[in-house]
Amino acid sequence: MNTPFDTRTFRDALGTFTTGVTIITTLTEEGERVGLTANSFNSVSLEPPLILWSLAKTSASVPFFTAAKHWNVHVLSAEQEALSARFAAKGEDKFSGLEYDSGLGDVPLLKGCAARFQCRTAFTHDGGDHIIFIGEVLNFDKSDRPPLVYQNGQYALTAKKPREGVSLSSSSISVESGYTENLLGYLLGRAHYQMIHKMQSRLQKHGLSQQQFFILSVLCIQDCLTLEQLNRFIDYTGQLVTVEEMNSLMQKELIALDTRGLQYQLTGEGREASVHNIAQAKAIEESLVDQLGAADVMALKLLLKRLVVKTDPGLPDLWSDKKEKI
Amino acid sequence: MNTPFDTRTFRDALGTFTTGVTIITTLTEEGERVGLTANSFNSVSLEPPLILWSLAKTSASVPFFTAAKHWNVHVLSAEQEALSARFAAKGEDKFSGLEYDSGLGDVPLLKGCAARFQCRTAFTHDGGDHIIFIGEVLNFDKSDRPPLVYQNGQYALTAKKPREGVSLSSSSISVESGYTENLLGYLLGRAHYQMIHKMQSRLQKHGLSQQQFFILSVLCIQDCLTLEQLNRFIDYTGQLVTVEEMNSLMQKELIALDTRGLQYQLTGEGREASVHNIAQAKAIEESLVDQLGAADVMALKLLLKRLVVKTDPGLPDLWSDKKEKI
Repeated sequence: MNTPFDTRTFRDALGTFTTGVTIITTLTEEGERVGLTANSFNSVSLEPPLILWSLAKTSASVPFFTAAKHWNVHVLSAEQEALSARFAAKGEDKFSGLEYDSGLGDVPLLKGCAARFQCRTAFTHDGGDHIIFIGEVLNFDKSDRPPLVYQNGQYALTAKKPREGVSLSSSSISVESGYTENLLGYLLGRAHYQMIHKMQSRLQKHGLSQQQFFILSVLCIQDCLTLEQLNRFIDYTGQLVTVEEMNSLMQKELIALDTRGLQYQLTGEGREASVHNIAQAKAIEESLVDQLGAADVMALKLLLKRLVVKTDPGLPDLWSDKKEKI
Repeated sequence: MNTPFDTRTFRDALGTFTTGVTIITTLTEEGERVGLTANSFNSVSLEPPLILWSLAKTSASVPFFTAAKHWNVHVLSAEQEALSARFAAKGEDKFSGLEYDSGLGDVPLLKGCAARFQCRTAFTHDGGDHIIFIGEVLNFDKSDRPPLVYQNGQYALTAKKPREGVSLSSSSISVESGYTENLLGYLLGRAHYQMIHKMQSRLQKHGLSQQQFFILSVLCIQDCLTLEQLNRFIDYTGQLVTVEEMNSLMQKELIALDTRGLQYQLTGEGREASVHNIAQAKAIEESLVDQLGAADVMALKLLLKRLVVKTDPGLPDLWSDKKEKI
């Protein structure tokens, strides 16, 4: 692998090195607030506590940072992507409407970050087309917010990678068919059924089957559906709903037919049951957030959404308010 | 948030800044190979092309790197976690058994990385308890391997975070029940059913139901099962297998009963059908790897495995060779 040496490909190669994202703030001698987004941050020394970052010599902020005694580095959290974009753009007052604390030397100290370092310049060094600022850390703090990540020119979410790996099976006999626990379809099915399994006790208590749970959930969003319309939403699960199933839910007084005898809708009781089901599903999800961590559940959901979009066989939009007329 | 200033908490705060992982190699004047793991790398300048990293003054490698003219920085790929650990440990010949290329000045150039930079020292600067090496990049190359990531003291995988977000629904009417597309259980179910949906044409062609597909898959791994044993593997899907279902598969000559009439096993034809099903599932997964990227599918699988482990209701191990006696 040999690459011609041009700036674009060099930049791409540098982009393989993943980084966090920081915003660095200072105050001009006139007391104006200055801030910019940088991912050229890194730690240098523990004793004394030193960190560094570098700034393009062409940046309009160079005179402010070279004159400044104090500046603050903010390691952004995953939820601060918009803030990152705001401070990466030029012009305007980037601080307008932002709430912030005041750090040493009154330098703005932004809120909601993963960590913040209050520094004074220890040295500056020439770094080609950049100036390297080495700061002594005078004060710092840290939160538990998952950090924002930048890789290959785009934002990313991270998932913890346990050192020992994760295995579902104690043994790993090789199976001629190649059907292993590592197959995505298997993992999705098992994860899905195990989540439903956790709902089971609640469903059983109310004498509901999985499918009846699906039916109530759909009607909870799209009330007043004919059996045919309902099936268009459920079809992809491979389990078509029959009139008998609907009758059983009517006997339980969870759903009712409209006066024309065409469209099903939830009764008050049915709506209440459905709301409780969803609350139960949310409680299960919350306990998973505790076990896996908020950042990892966030990444899992994003990946599932992207998979759903890529494998969508053309399902009707469950949350759309543009319902076909019957 | 105010933190007492001690080294441990300072280190934790620095750890919120996500980084890639690099191995830096050089050659001593005697021609011995030297290498170490560092995450203190960062880019500095495009013109001239400069990068930096820092090395603890207490490191045994200091004299070699200060004397060296050339050194190579390797941005590690997600699959090089073991290599990262090897070069982070002390002693031994870290290069023993490793295949590598020879870079400028014959400095070892490791294989399988996300990117590699061949450098000569431009400057060194004092950085407290570290020395900062600034290197001029003389040559570099890059692969498409997903990079290894380090965050909060552990390795991580990344998932791309599209700037515009991912949404399944065109509108976002708020639903009183709180049942939204953002519910983990919904996303898992929809992703799972859509994956099965992609299998559907193959299953239909062979007149197989989803459940029959599950049965064949289980028998493909754990051959010779009674109906009761089989159900212990399938139970959590909420779909108990009946004798009728097994009879239907027997009529199709995909499974057969043993001479005692107790245990089911695949016929040659059944095994072949199952192997083809798995191949189809793998092809579907491959096309997803193309669409989502290998790194994201890797992260998705890891997250699903961790979810499965956390929600496991105590299922028997499908891949275990220790089968209960009947």
